[in-house]
Amino acid sequence: MAKLYVVGTGPGDISKITAEALAALKKCEVIVGYTVYTDIIKKFLPNKKYVSTPMTKEKDRCLLAYKYAETENTAIICSGDAGVYGMAGLVIELKHLFKNVELTIIPGVTAALSGGALLGSPLTVDFAVISLSDLLTPYELIQKRIRCAAQGDFVICIYNPSSKKRSGYLKEACQIIMEHRGPKTVCGVVRNIGRDGEEKKILTLKELCDYQADMFTTVFIGNSATTVKEGFMVTPRGYIL
Amino acid sequence: MAKLYVVGTGPGDISKITAEALAALKKCEVIVGYTVYTDIIKKFLPNKKYVSTPMTKEKDRCLLAYKYAETENTAIICSGDAGVYGMAGLVIELKHLFKNVELTIIPGVTAALSGGALLGSPLTVDFAVISLSDLLTPYELIQKRIRCAAQGDFVICIYNPSSKKRSGYLKEACQIIMEHRGPKTVCGVVRNIGRDGEEKKILTLKELCDYQADMFTTVFIGNSATTVKEGFMVTPRGYIL
Repeated sequence: MAKLYVVGTGPGDISKITAEALAALKKCEVIVGYTVYTDIIKKFLPNKKYVSTPMTKEKDRCLLAYKYAETENTAIICSGDAGVYGMAGLVIELKHLFKNVELTIIPGVTAALSGGALLGSPLTVDFAVISLSDLLTPYELIQKRIRCAAQGDFVICIYNPSSKKRSGYLKEACQIIMEHRGPKTVCGVVRNIGRDGEEKKILTLKELCDYQADMFTTVFIGNSATTVKEGFMVTPRGYIL
Repeated sequence: MAKLYVVGTGPGDISKITAEALAALKKCEVIVGYTVYTDIIKKFLPNKKYVSTPMTKEKDRCLLAYKYAETENTAIICSGDAGVYGMAGLVIELKHLFKNVELTIIPGVTAALSGGALLGSPLTVDFAVISLSDLLTPYELIQKRIRCAAQGDFVICIYNPSSKKRSGYLKEACQIIMEHRGPKTVCGVVRNIGRDGEEKKILTLKELCDYQADMFTTVFIGNSATTVKEGFMVTPRGYIL
């Protein structure tokens, strides 16, 4: 039986891929994914068949991967983790159409972890991950989640903080959070994790309101105990020092 | 200037370590950590000085690592991610005592991601990660966070669901969540991720109430849309199929 792997390759360059993910890719004859990500893998594993598909055609990409997987070991790759805002969910939802393909999900380092490590340790304790993209989630539900996470004093990690169509969403999220946390709450932003132009910045929640995020940005909003130490954003675990 | 790396090695065996983490460990002369984790690394990198410390002496472990790092490249290792309930936070908090040591945090695959991949794709969309350990967090705050996450229809991933001293906490968490979600909500548990005795189980929220978790268990509680497809736990992203 041929196999389909859904592989999280980690952020940016190949250095954050796991040994397990790399081993799975080596076993495959076909690697399917969005062009930016297949190009990264191609440099390291040139002797594979690479199939690129446009960004918005997620279902077509999954069906194509299954078609290949019926006869050859195939991987469908995702930046970051395979599951978190990745393709694993959709691939599983389509599995019933391809009973003869064996499916394996291989995790990877998602931006919450890689971005967190760049800033320091914002996610030491309980945290919530929320995407501000309303392509597939109603905006009212996103706002409700922001509010609930703020009420629970969760550290909040925001994916997809902005795009041209929703330039005001990050500001609105910050305003909701400021109903529960002070304007000096420690926040952090990272851009282009593991890629050229990688950058990070620590700022206050008030300053974050007016920060111009883009689709390559991941945002971290500290809880009430998050602080800055020696240039690192850190949420204390609670040890007595 | 000598370096101290805080390295997340991923769950269980060495296969979920990232290329970046392995490269950092290779650069180090000294590797500090809890015995179970240093033993795993020692098999692959035998020619290092390994320093093991007991589980509860976290501050001592960090200070020891800094002491070594003053003269030799040193890594302090954490299972899973370096930040998420890991040592990175505490290491940063102690950084001011060792101005001459350069600090680098290297992320790893945390149990939410590796356990999620074993089950399928529970964390496809917005999720909250909550530890039920009340050693360092007041139990009232943990319960509040459970409630807020349930209200926001977050998928919830629970770390440290049980120990001898707090055997009823998982049941109490489930009862709070059942005030907001039905008893048939799809849940999953994984044990011993990446290790001997690895197991997974999909069950309902009602069944989870009476599940006997231990300290090697990670728990996933689906949101209102989470379902089971072909044996996988999956939270749909929201694509129209």
